[in-house]
Amino acid sequence: MNFEAHKPIVMLNKEDAAELDLMPLERVLLRYGKKECIAIVNISKTTVKEGEILLSINVQNELCIKKPSIITALPASPPKSLDFIKKRLNGTELTKSEILSIIQDTVDNKLSDIELTAFVISLEHFPMSIDEATYLSQAMIKTSRRLKLGKGAIYDKHSIGGVPGDKTSILVVPIVASFGLTIPKTSSRAITSPAGTADRFECIAPVELEIHEIEKVVKKTKGCLVWGGAVDLAPADDMFIKIEYPFSIDPFLLPSVMSKKKAAGAKYLVIDIPTGDETKVKSIKEFNKLSRGFIELGKRLGIEVRTLSTYADQPLGHAVGPALEAREALSTLMWKRPSIDLVEKACAVAGVLLEFAGHKNGKKLAMHSLESGKAYRKMKEIIKAQGGNPDIKPSDIKVGKHVVKVKSKSSGIVEWFDTKAVAEIARELGAPKDKGAGIYFHKKLRENVKKGDTIFELYAEKRHKMKRALSALKKKDIMNVDTKFDMVLETYPEETRDRYYFILER
Amino acid sequence: MNFEAHKPIVMLNKEDAAELDLMPLERVLLRYGKKECIAIVNISKTTVKEGEILLSINVQNELCIKKPSIITALPASPPKSLDFIKKRLNGTELTKSEILSIIQDTVDNKLSDIELTAFVISLEHFPMSIDEATYLSQAMIKTSRRLKLGKGAIYDKHSIGGVPGDKTSILVVPIVASFGLTIPKTSSRAITSPAGTADRFECIAPVELEIHEIEKVVKKTKGCLVWGGAVDLAPADDMFIKIEYPFSIDPFLLPSVMSKKKAAGAKYLVIDIPTGDETKVKSIKEFNKLSRGFIELGKRLGIEVRTLSTYADQPLGHAVGPALEAREALSTLMWKRPSIDLVEKACAVAGVLLEFAGHKNGKKLAMHSLESGKAYRKMKEIIKAQGGNPDIKPSDIKVGKHVVKVKSKSSGIVEWFDTKAVAEIARELGAPKDKGAGIYFHKKLRENVKKGDTIFELYAEKRHKMKRALSALKKKDIMNVDTKFDMVLETYPEETRDRYYFILER
Repeated sequence: MNFEAHKPIVMLNKEDAAELDLMPLERVLLRYGKKECIAIVNISKTTVKEGEILLSINVQNELCIKKPSIITALPASPPKSLDFIKKRLNGTELTKSEILSIIQDTVDNKLSDIELTAFVISLEHFPMSIDEATYLSQAMIKTSRRLKLGKGAIYDKHSIGGVPGDKTSILVVPIVASFGLTIPKTSSRAITSPAGTADRFECIAPVELEIHEIEKVVKKTKGCLVWGGAVDLAPADDMFIKIEYPFSIDPFLLPSVMSKKKAAGAKYLVIDIPTGDETKVKSIKEFNKLSRGFIELGKRLGIEVRTLSTYADQPLGHAVGPALEAREALSTLMWKRPSIDLVEKACAVAGVLLEFAGHKNGKKLAMHSLESGKAYRKMKEIIKAQGGNPDIKPSDIKVGKHVVKVKSKSSGIVEWFDTKAVAEIARELGAPKDKGAGIYFHKKLRENVKKGDTIFELYAEKRHKMKRALSALKKKDIMNVDTKFDMVLETYPEETRDRYYFILER
Repeated sequence: MNFEAHKPIVMLNKEDAAELDLMPLERVLLRYGKKECIAIVNISKTTVKEGEILLSINVQNELCIKKPSIITALPASPPKSLDFIKKRLNGTELTKSEILSIIQDTVDNKLSDIELTAFVISLEHFPMSIDEATYLSQAMIKTSRRLKLGKGAIYDKHSIGGVPGDKTSILVVPIVASFGLTIPKTSSRAITSPAGTADRFECIAPVELEIHEIEKVVKKTKGCLVWGGAVDLAPADDMFIKIEYPFSIDPFLLPSVMSKKKAAGAKYLVIDIPTGDETKVKSIKEFNKLSRGFIELGKRLGIEVRTLSTYADQPLGHAVGPALEAREALSTLMWKRPSIDLVEKACAVAGVLLEFAGHKNGKKLAMHSLESGKAYRKMKEIIKAQGGNPDIKPSDIKVGKHVVKVKSKSSGIVEWFDTKAVAEIARELGAPKDKGAGIYFHKKLRENVKKGDTIFELYAEKRHKMKRALSALKKKDIMNVDTKFDMVLETYPEETRDRYYFILER
């Protein structure tokens, strides 16, 4: 019998476990011929009989077992890193070698989920010191694959996420590369948002490249837009995300971001920190604190960092969802009906990188690169190098065939967006899995609306997902049009709302 | 294909999970005919094909599915209690109803292991307030079965553990019951120690009784010595122990102890708190703090509590291991070669309970009950009522046939015991699973030893376990004989040792 697990696991009969003095989640050493493997113990009352042991597929592979066989099982000690996790639970800061041991065992799948959870929660409750953040970053870099791009300075950007429709990177990369600066952008796929940059750009060109292919693209064009997951940058982080996600916590933010950037070779880095009620960072005070962390950690890792607090109270541009966003990014690059807030943000971010390189008036230069078509020409090079069609047009990008226009019931101005609800509805529509699903906003904050105007359109690839989204929309508004300007910002006690939610994206 | 899990779990293909927008460890609602069930999502790449779903045996039972069938799967919300766990991670104290929700979902197996871990670690890092401890106790009582023993006052004792060979309860119960007081003692089996009271007494009489049987025994004899696990007292606690164990932490100590006592109906309770270097409670200051917690929590639950700090630097009595300890407890009750420290401790504990009942000089009375054979006669009644042979003699209790005498290499006095090592070696010998395995100490602290004297004997049922224990003994002493009295108590920096270990027992 085969069973699949993400850890090396065995199932032992209750009596055999007692005989070996093994509790659930303790370790067993397995020996088969000359092969050895340590696995985590699960205990069975009925499925596994006395004298039998059931091995997960990864254990079978490790031991090269292909059919039912006789193997030796002995009690084994837990990995040393468990002691270090206990030590931190006990309130003690960890040393460099202790942290490396935890990260190495995480990557090697030697720690059980409950052990990883204890470590993550410990870092949530007693936030890591700057030393610990440094050691964690270094350990995550050490256990990661790395891009090798030669000697020139490398520029990079990162957003900690939280704004639906944020396709800034797709503009920043060609702008910056069009000035001859190297910017090897690796991006994530969506975790809780309707689209990650990798999901978006995949509608324009392939993003799952091997490391040597990425190196080739970057050497040729100076830029790239690829999925970081395909090249296993910071594998430890992927395991921590799985634990953080159910709790909407993110204690690894600093080392997670910085280790990935360092693994890609970054020397200069701009970090976009969307700031607002519905994002991780709610105030300028919090922004300042987080910025100090990034800058200090950057110093220790040899990365010069600048951070930007950006507006986060509405979607960026008009489109939310992979294909719709890809269309918007591409047409903005082609300078056809560019989205103004998107252009503004992309130029601000690119401008910082240009100024790192010694240019003056970075933002103005960035804008010129866009307006002149220089950035778009660079983008065509990148698309081609990544294996896409450089002549792709926005209309070539397929969007969902089920479309519903939503009209305003009243005249007035757009008063607010609920960006969390925007993300939820876009996911109900099928994003990010269904690339053509999403929302297109015709009206944005403070715009005038007449009764009957289309305020947004819903796109879905599948009819049942459209139905599902429409019924969710009945319960929750994603934007609001009102005749009067509301002077009351908040009431106390405030309405109940889900305080623990944010868009986990990195 | 059947797979056994301790939670309701399904395995979905990666593509189907994406289609349902489900991450690992999120929930899915399953529908089959009129049956519904919520399960935790695991994701498979190979074992489960698209369109297939693999159900754990408990899910199959819940849905009454007996063969491969078509079922409906929909994304489901996480249990509300997850929000309360997040709330506590966020640093907020929980209310009564929030705690009840978490405990109810724990007992109903609705929370995943990582969710339970987050809750446990949260309580370890930010210890529960006395209000939270009260709510936790009440919730654990509410989700527990209860003993119904009529209206009379109920007396009970508890030890938080940490001393190998602590068979005090086997003496306390018959002493107290011999005065007509009701003492329905439920005990645990060993978790990390070589024997729990249930393991010990099982060598004398059956301990796995149904609730109605226990009630019958207690109504007849006023006392009992049974395994609490058989009657499912505080099922939530068993799940928390599983999480606490790998980390050697015990944040639930107060509500765990008190809820079990309340579920058994206790009105008066004495708690034995072994105090010393190798136990949970290391100093009188810590003892005082813990005592205040027990007493205050007792007040809120309607239990009058007294605590005793007891000596913990050597095993209690001479025997360690279920059968050896049962022999020692029985012969002490029969007043044949009684172990003096065991008698002293048992009478002190029983004395407190007798004084609760209005007796004066409780300890003296307890001693008289032992010396006069009154306690032993009561014990025979209890053994008989529980279904054992009341005429059982110490020599009837079988001990391991492999015996090794360990002799002193020098003359001097016994200077120290390493109680942790004692427990480890006893477990290597096979205790608690092999009831006849254990250690018998011929010499105790401060006793004079001549070179060549037997200082202890090892007992094992199985030869390979004896070998294993002997090789472990080569690496670690469990006791030490020296010619001079050592005036140095501690050096700084101290030797490295495992700081995070204690014997988890409750």
